Amino acid sequence: MMLKKVYDFSALETALTDISGELEETFDALLPVPDGGDAKVVEAMRYALFAGGKRLRPFLVRATADLFGVSRTSSLRAGAALECIHTYSLVHDDLPAMDDDDLRRGKPTVHKAFDEATAILAGDALLTFAFEILADESTHADPRVRAALVSLIARASGHHGMVGGQMLDLDAEDKTLGEQEIIRLQQMKTGALIVSSVEAGAVLGKASPHARHALVAYARAVGLAFQIADDLLDHTASEAEMGKATGKDADAGKETLLSLWGEDRAREQARILTEQALGYLEEFGDKAELLRDVAQFAIHRRR
Amino acid sequence: MMLKKVYDFSALETALTDISGELEETFDALLPVPDGGDAKVVEAMRYALFAGGKRLRPFLVRATADLFGVSRTSSLRAGAALECIHTYSLVHDDLPAMDDDDLRRGKPTVHKAFDEATAILAGDALLTFAFEILADESTHADPRVRAALVSLIARASGHHGMVGGQMLDLDAEDKTLGEQEIIRLQQMKTGALIVSSVEAGAVLGKASPHARHALVAYARAVGLAFQIADDLLDHTASEAEMGKATGKDADAGKETLLSLWGEDRAREQARILTEQALGYLEEFGDKAELLRDVAQFAIHRRR
Repeated sequence: MMLKKVYDFSALETALTDISGELEETFDALLPVPDGGDAKVVEAMRYALFAGGKRLRPFLVRATADLFGVSRTSSLRAGAALECIHTYSLVHDDLPAMDDDDLRRGKPTVHKAFDEATAILAGDALLTFAFEILADESTHADPRVRAALVSLIARASGHHGMVGGQMLDLDAEDKTLGEQEIIRLQQMKTGALIVSSVEAGAVLGKASPHARHALVAYARAVGLAFQIADDLLDHTASEAEMGKATGKDADAGKETLLSLWGEDRAREQARILTEQALGYLEEFGDKAELLRDVAQFAIHRRR
Repeated sequence: MMLKKVYDFSALETALTDISGELEETFDALLPVPDGGDAKVVEAMRYALFAGGKRLRPFLVRATADLFGVSRTSSLRAGAALECIHTYSLVHDDLPAMDDDDLRRGKPTVHKAFDEATAILAGDALLTFAFEILADESTHADPRVRAALVSLIARASGHHGMVGGQMLDLDAEDKTLGEQEIIRLQQMKTGALIVSSVEAGAVLGKASPHARHALVAYARAVGLAFQIADDLLDHTASEAEMGKATGKDADAGKETLLSLWGEDRAREQARILTEQALGYLEEFGDKAELLRDVAQFAIHRRR
């Protein structure tokens, strides 16, 4: 018989709070509102960026980069770029022609708070701004690192990665997908950006190919565990807890790993993925404690 | 009394045809259609990219880079990236929430040929793909050049540049703008990407600061001349000649330099801008002949 462990996430929570605060300061400094009629698009970018969220991607960049003693300015800026990309994808995903959501984290979505045209433009500007940040000298002194970050993150977020996954997801609404197809969809739609957050930390740290591969494998497992946990939360949580509409996938008749596997097997698979993720971190010793915490958090969190 | 000169644009036309052909080969090679449900977004990207157009931005990169003996693969790839950005901006601009256009270059716009969600995603993917191309080693061996291109082009196309200009333009629909405001709008909305095309050629060629400044000044003048000529064509051309709806700005009650200045003064200003542009090219001698041609073409073209 197994005893249920109680995890102490206080170090992780402190790290997430710290990076959230630093990110808000960074966005505030990098995105002053201009005087003219173009102010609206910057206000909409800021509205979307300051809406909160776990800041998981910036956290993953920072926690990985810390393994290699990277300057905290570098990891913060690369994390800010990834958060811009994540945020733009939410702004466009919420549009009437896409998921048509009115609420995001308990607040009106950008096209509701502003208008559709402004939401489209704010998303475009956030995506562009991400690459501006990555290519800037303040992110890393070595242009080789900056170019590698742009390459990595563009591949993860475009048609090979996140956008391709969103297309698969829209296309899936009138199809029955098998296990491998759902996994591929999730790896592209949400997994690719999570993996590239960890990989960005490795690139900043000029990690050896061996260390980089281990970290990528860790991130793939954690990304999928998070997705399964999200499906489970979406299935059980109330709308008030999540701050957004829940049960939407089931309502839309969308196949998920949860609908395919059922709750028990989904929980078991998420647990196995977490174990695998932890295995890939062994070589990094105590330094990787926060990365271990976030793998546990993926399956033990409540929202 | 002045004699009306007849310009010979055959060398320019050959250069534009050549770069169009090379671009289509490049896009064909870089964007194979995948097997799965994500095929649709790549098909929509290809549909938009292969719809034709003058290919002015890739031409400007190539003609400028040629001044410095840059490899033609480098200038072609940087030009392809700029064309991806120009194309994404048209796809998003045509959306129902923006300009709501059904036709572009005589063909159904992307959201008409596919659907709105696919058009949003295809635009996002084209923008992302542009930075993937720029950061790739095949574009330039020197990572410093690649990072500089990403920086330059991100600044020109995001909220400081093109997207900011689109926001100004939407915002202008219920306002009366003065001359300086209209010029600022045009410099952001269309000028910034034209300037960055020329500047990209200079960056690829590691031009001296002096040469780079002269080329930027040339591009600013040409960009504004093109815009005034566009307004004049929009005012006089028939829909069949332009392959898109014309007279839209006037219908929407939008202020343009033409509506502010009247036809004669608009023509005169475009001519003066072209003269200024030619002045900035003097130091480059005969090598800059194609850049001279395109400045003349701006004001002498029929469509």
